[in-house]
Amino acid sequence: MKALSGNIMNRGIEIEELESHVGEMVKVHGSIYKVRKMKGFSFVLLRTKREVMQCIAEEVLELPAEESTVILTAKVVEEPRSKKGYELHIQGIEVLSEPSEASPIVINQKLVDTSIENMLDYRMVTLRNQKQRAIFKLQEGICQGFRSFLQSQNFTEIHTPKLVQTGAEGGANIFALNYFGQQAYLAQSPQFYKQMMVGVFERVYEIGPVFRAEKHDTSRHLNEYTSVDFEMGFIRSFEEIMEMETGMLKYTMNYLKEYYGEELALLNVKLPVIEEIPVITFYEAKELVSKEYNRPITDMEDFEPEEEKLLYECIYKKTGSEFVFVTHYPSSKRPFYAMETPGNAEVTDSFDLLFRGLEITTGGQRIHSYEEQVEKMHRREMTVELFESYLMMHKYGMPPHGGMGLGLERFTAKLLGYENVRYATLFPRDIHRLTP
Amino acid sequence: MKALSGNIMNRGIEIEELESHVGEMVKVHGSIYKVRKMKGFSFVLLRTKREVMQCIAEEVLELPAEESTVILTAKVVEEPRSKKGYELHIQGIEVLSEPSEASPIVINQKLVDTSIENMLDYRMVTLRNQKQRAIFKLQEGICQGFRSFLQSQNFTEIHTPKLVQTGAEGGANIFALNYFGQQAYLAQSPQFYKQMMVGVFERVYEIGPVFRAEKHDTSRHLNEYTSVDFEMGFIRSFEEIMEMETGMLKYTMNYLKEYYGEELALLNVKLPVIEEIPVITFYEAKELVSKEYNRPITDMEDFEPEEEKLLYECIYKKTGSEFVFVTHYPSSKRPFYAMETPGNAEVTDSFDLLFRGLEITTGGQRIHSYEEQVEKMHRREMTVELFESYLMMHKYGMPPHGGMGLGLERFTAKLLGYENVRYATLFPRDIHRLTP
Repeated sequence: MKALSGNIMNRGIEIEELESHVGEMVKVHGSIYKVRKMKGFSFVLLRTKREVMQCIAEEVLELPAEESTVILTAKVVEEPRSKKGYELHIQGIEVLSEPSEASPIVINQKLVDTSIENMLDYRMVTLRNQKQRAIFKLQEGICQGFRSFLQSQNFTEIHTPKLVQTGAEGGANIFALNYFGQQAYLAQSPQFYKQMMVGVFERVYEIGPVFRAEKHDTSRHLNEYTSVDFEMGFIRSFEEIMEMETGMLKYTMNYLKEYYGEELALLNVKLPVIEEIPVITFYEAKELVSKEYNRPITDMEDFEPEEEKLLYECIYKKTGSEFVFVTHYPSSKRPFYAMETPGNAEVTDSFDLLFRGLEITTGGQRIHSYEEQVEKMHRREMTVELFESYLMMHKYGMPPHGGMGLGLERFTAKLLGYENVRYATLFPRDIHRLTP
Repeated sequence: MKALSGNIMNRGIEIEELESHVGEMVKVHGSIYKVRKMKGFSFVLLRTKREVMQCIAEEVLELPAEESTVILTAKVVEEPRSKKGYELHIQGIEVLSEPSEASPIVINQKLVDTSIENMLDYRMVTLRNQKQRAIFKLQEGICQGFRSFLQSQNFTEIHTPKLVQTGAEGGANIFALNYFGQQAYLAQSPQFYKQMMVGVFERVYEIGPVFRAEKHDTSRHLNEYTSVDFEMGFIRSFEEIMEMETGMLKYTMNYLKEYYGEELALLNVKLPVIEEIPVITFYEAKELVSKEYNRPITDMEDFEPEEEKLLYECIYKKTGSEFVFVTHYPSSKRPFYAMETPGNAEVTDSFDLLFRGLEITTGGQRIHSYEEQVEKMHRREMTVELFESYLMMHKYGMPPHGGMGLGLERFTAKLLGYENVRYATLFPRDIHRLTP
């Protein structure tokens, strides 16, 4: 009987090792990204897993169409004018596949020069552009950084259900479906489940999809996005959650610098320097913006997007920080599980984190006492029975706890300087878009 | 203005460091897991993030109810009879919270002695049992092991949409919902998207939820589960995918041994020894089982669960392997994107991986040529237009590629020796269960 030992087959030298093979013949595989014919030879750019390699082909060599996939036999030749310090002189080409047609969108220029609609309609092709794909390599780096930090802080990774019987965030912004004859919903957040798991592991996190049936059609809303959630028990105050997030962000910026330098350079990313993140209360923030920009306050319960931008401008001028924590949001604007600030039930021990003028995180301390939670639900005229299974954790004992959720795509977009979150979303879902 | 620096607050000595503080006073927090009254003193078990600590309380100390959350002031005292080599002598107790009621299910014995229905109805409590939660700590370890291996092999992590317009696996086993007036579905797998991303990054992976509207009510079916998916380009044959999976499994078993030793011991897990994984074709397997057990073959196109168990028994006897790859499944049983075996269109370059008699993985090579894919769809009388966006990747050039999907809960269950996959599912979803 045949058997496999799991020794990963070596199909030649990996791109990453080419440097140490200058002067030698190698085999490398990839896609023909771009051919530029010169006098007597061609420049051939080969797209590999993470790089685009410069190769030279003599005129006699027949070159396959762009986006063909190939295995090249080539000599590694020192070339000081190349970014890598060497280039590949192609000796032979084995063609593995050829496209049926050329893409209607040009993808091998520096920029993909088309509308965002086209960009997204042809996502499977436009992502092949060197800069476009670098966005999502960096997004991977952000996730790896977050995870690596949270694991170091003894958080446990969990996988919670997305099909649920009760929405955590309330309201009408929830997708419903028929689940074997009963009504089910798509989870708006892992809120209830991560809280339950605090009773089990004390500290938990999840990076996964969440669903919001919001009808907003803006540059910052998605109907499905990737939420980075953590929740921690035995906190003394909700500031510990903000400290944890600050630590996570600092760590991740350093992680990107260390492991994703090429993509940062390619996209010309200016990483924020995080020394300290300023903290301001919601009402202070409202007043600050009102005073500094001489704007009347029209809504004392929420920020307008414009106010968030002005707040950023103002905080940045005063402190140099591109982040700001806004705390103590009005109780009326926070969900039923939010803990009210001791001594002032009008506000909550909660926060948002704004980054470059955009809300990227919502967090706070949760009510852990059963009686207190039930009392607040009564006050809000909620049907307590609908939440019976959620409330069991309170009934049978919970530590003081809280946590936060961060929108991965929003954070990526702001980090890379995109105004539209769709540029940082692999396959966006919005009110008009369900494909590809 | 106030500011936070992200220096994680130190609230005393971490449990992991207690060993080096023998003879000293420490502060530790956790939940009162169990109190056992003795003559003149009590044994108090404190449940922390990952451990259960043995503590001693003098009779004069008033002890809060089980499942209260506390901060203990205690002296670390050498005690050779304790598993850790020391125990904690409690000097003071600060109570942070107390339960409203005692859990109706006893959770602090070695086993949670109740029906699986009760176990799941009270999931947020029963998971607090030391052994129950260890299952999901190990599940975390499996994910970390998989990721760590795949990153080392230059796979890129992706996040693909779960709201889709077309199902990848076909058939009626798909959840439908109204998406702003149009019909949407919940993704049965990330199949289409991971293939598209092979054209971008060559190697990609995702660990995320998938949804199957199957009406099966068995011990091995879930309607939502966590799928570990990878997809790789530039393969020479589909054996490379099996090699990669073998490597991943080997790596992960070692990873568990290294980082999750306590949970393995607690649950008495016998990890499989993976030297080589035998490979057998579907028809050979059918014949082998038929011959060895003198069973007539009734279905030449699929395995019955019983046959999978017998195949395992037989392979284990012959080779000592608890895994077996079964290859070349009939084309009729594989999806439209499966590559047919060169020279025999009746079968496909595909495989399942069986572990201890249960299918945990389905994988194979995919068609990469546009013409070949369209031709096969015509042969199957499919409406090609419905797949226009999927087919764009083929049209504009794709390398030979393939991949696999592994059911995280099934794998965990089999690894830990549970016959019912629900024991290894945090919050299971089945035809009867949508809560908690």
